[in-house]
Amino acid sequence: MDEIASNEIVTDDDVISILIATDNHLGYMERDPLRSNDSFQTFEEILLYAKKYNVDMMLLGGDLFHDNKPSRKTLYNTIALLRQHCMGDKPCQLEFLSDQKRNFTSFFPIVNYEDPNLNISLPIFSIHGNHDDPSGDGNLCALDVLSASGLINYFGKSNQVDNIEISPILLKKGKTRLALYGLGNIRDERLYRTFLRKNVKMLRPKQNMDEWFNLFVLHQNRVSHNPKNYIPETFVNDFIDLILWGHEHECLIDLSKNEVKNFYITQPGSSVATSLCEGESKTKHIGILRIKQKQFEIEKIKLKSVRPFLMADICLQENLSNERDPTVITNYLIQKVEELEKKAIDDWKENNPDLSSKMNCPRPLIRLRVEYSGGYPTFNPHKFGQRFVNRIANPNDILHFYRKKAVAKLNSS
Amino acid sequence: MDEIASNEIVTDDDVISILIATDNHLGYMERDPLRSNDSFQTFEEILLYAKKYNVDMMLLGGDLFHDNKPSRKTLYNTIALLRQHCMGDKPCQLEFLSDQKRNFTSFFPIVNYEDPNLNISLPIFSIHGNHDDPSGDGNLCALDVLSASGLINYFGKSNQVDNIEISPILLKKGKTRLALYGLGNIRDERLYRTFLRKNVKMLRPKQNMDEWFNLFVLHQNRVSHNPKNYIPETFVNDFIDLILWGHEHECLIDLSKNEVKNFYITQPGSSVATSLCEGESKTKHIGILRIKQKQFEIEKIKLKSVRPFLMADICLQENLSNERDPTVITNYLIQKVEELEKKAIDDWKENNPDLSSKMNCPRPLIRLRVEYSGGYPTFNPHKFGQRFVNRIANPNDILHFYRKKAVAKLNSS
Ligand SMILES: [Mn+2]
Ligand SMILES: [Mn+2]
Ligand SMILES: [Mn+2]
Ligand SMILES: [Mn+2]
Repeated sequence: MDEIASNEIVTDDDVISILIATDNHLGYMERDPLRSNDSFQTFEEILLYAKKYNVDMMLLGGDLFHDNKPSRKTLYNTIALLRQHCMGDKPCQLEFLSDQKRNFTSFFPIVNYEDPNLNISLPIFSIHGNHDDPSGDGNLCALDVLSASGLINYFGKSNQVDNIEISPILLKKGKTRLALYGLGNIRDERLYRTFLRKNVKMLRPKQNMDEWFNLFVLHQNRVSHNPKNYIPETFVNDFIDLILWGHEHECLIDLSKNEVKNFYITQPGSSVATSLCEGESKTKHIGILRIKQKQFEIEKIKLKSVRPFLMADICLQENLSNERDPTVITNYLIQKVEELEKKAIDDWKENNPDLSSKMNCPRPLIRLRVEYSGGYPTFNPHKFGQRFVNRIANPNDILHFYRKKAVAKLNSS
Repeated sequence: MDEIASNEIVTDDDVISILIATDNHLGYMERDPLRSNDSFQTFEEILLYAKKYNVDMMLLGGDLFHDNKPSRKTLYNTIALLRQHCMGDKPCQLEFLSDQKRNFTSFFPIVNYEDPNLNISLPIFSIHGNHDDPSGDGNLCALDVLSASGLINYFGKSNQVDNIEISPILLKKGKTRLALYGLGNIRDERLYRTFLRKNVKMLRPKQNMDEWFNLFVLHQNRVSHNPKNYIPETFVNDFIDLILWGHEHECLIDLSKNEVKNFYITQPGSSVATSLCEGESKTKHIGILRIKQKQFEIEKIKLKSVRPFLMADICLQENLSNERDPTVITNYLIQKVEELEKKAIDDWKENNPDLSSKMNCPRPLIRLRVEYSGGYPTFNPHKFGQRFVNRIANPNDILHFYRKKAVAKLNSS
């Protein structure tokens, strides 16, 4: 397997092109008057890139929805966006070769673009994440509803957690054969154990076994928070060529090679920041994955609609030495917030020269992590933020006070 | 306007045929292990009649869903049934003549069978009922979700309740022109007042005004429970030819003429019994409405999949004179239940000669209304029902004790 540098694969009849994205968290902050539309706006931007780059399909890595039971409005908006952007007169050139009844557990075990009653221009394939996992009567998830309507091809639902057999979706275009393995989120500890017991079996096509490009999409912790509470990369079988890692919200879309296993990993990260941590403050991207036989490349695309988010770490002891007057500290922090605000706006203008003549920069998200060890006073973040209520998107939680020992970086992504 | 007797209109290129049904209450009793599928089974029977009778469209009178927020499973099952039975290669012969932006408030203001991306064989038009009315953020209802996916044409949503303007859907087939007026449920008292104030306006097509067949579908109390808590038939404008009345669960599908207004009313009733009252115990039907210019007829079709339901009124004083021994009373009531059970099964076998060789009669619903005035003892209906737990579908509420004065027949349909 060779990785080749960006833009070396010229799209032709042998190239499978896939828009890769993950963790769109549709419906996130839907009750916030300012931010309610953020997740949808960026998801629509992504759908428009799929059209612009003329991809064969889109592959999502889970957490399409933020809530396990999306509100009626979120479901309605999502269905409307999918119907608007995934339907039309573009025939899909991917030959579907595997047994669809094994790939899809839905009422209609058929890939949507082969249903003669639906005119699909952009097939979307998705696994579920931990936010939108199956539950309740019938063990259904929100993706099952989209799948029943034919707007999404939901795969990677496993009947058991202790004995998992993944039957790949087999797609072919020209000379390129793609085996797509999907595994929707399972609690990390359980999956860790199932891997250890060698009970995660990945089936392989018998014919031309070595000619397939093997892509695996999963939605698990990649970073170890506790032992056994993540999935080590090395657990994955080394016949895999590329892993699309969902769940981790930091955009690490550039290929990272696992030298032990000799495969590559891409982690697109979320398309909307759901926590104000450092990982989420990195510039967000999606990718165009192009596969030609056993070669592949990822072209990364910066998402323009994402609300600007800057954060900074401040140690009061280092910056204010012996000054403990609350007014002085407050003024110091106000100045820091305003510096970040200015930088966020300047960056946005620089990155969006076309937009900046037409509209103002969206109000940014700002987070100051304030280390107050050494007897410094703290004050109410909510009250502090009131002065920024018309300038900053998250006035109530700009400040996060912590002491040196507190390592408060566990997030549920 | 002439009503003509059943089967006189021979289907030809001038006849618009419409399957009419209402109050399907999908998801009713979805947690009852025995009855969870009742509403879906009958709804599927109805969809199959639409195919069998080769209708041009289906018209529903509201309460498609039992719960305002249907469970994921109910939404999933409904979408699956609609995709299965409403899509296919049968072109719709109805010309759509009105401004779709005025008829449909959805994200896609287009009738589903004209969307080039959807292959619709059976267009369904529906108003909302009181069970599935719009609410919450965005004032959306479950039908909006189905409408966004293109599986239903949801109409009759009014922006205001005090000033209502109904713009009809105008359909044409051959020489027949149909003006379809829809009004989703509004609280009866409000709508009563709006009618009184002459603020319900029904717009009429300017061209060939007298040639249109005018059909009005609404979902309100037809029977007066309290003054002003229903809509008198005479409130409806007399240019209307036929009213499809939803919400009332008793099947009164045979045409009833309002002699004051000179129009007809059909009340199909619910397709699943949601309360154990007399109205719901009548045989349930749907209809095939055939319209040829200004003539019309309704062919009624008995629903076979409806769970048998029999009820009886018993007055202890009349039947047991001075006998007040609880054991004797209990045995008497057991005997009555068993008589009804036997009758329900015999009726079902007689009505379903084809099915009765293949399957047993579904466990019937039985209700005994027991008048116990005169110092008779009552006992726990739940405990009484335990002996019928494997024979009767509603063991916990077979018995309903009441005194002479108690008139407990108000239902929320
Ligand atoms: Mn996740
Ligand atoms: Mn996530
Ligand atoms: Mn109703
Ligand atoms: Mn009803």
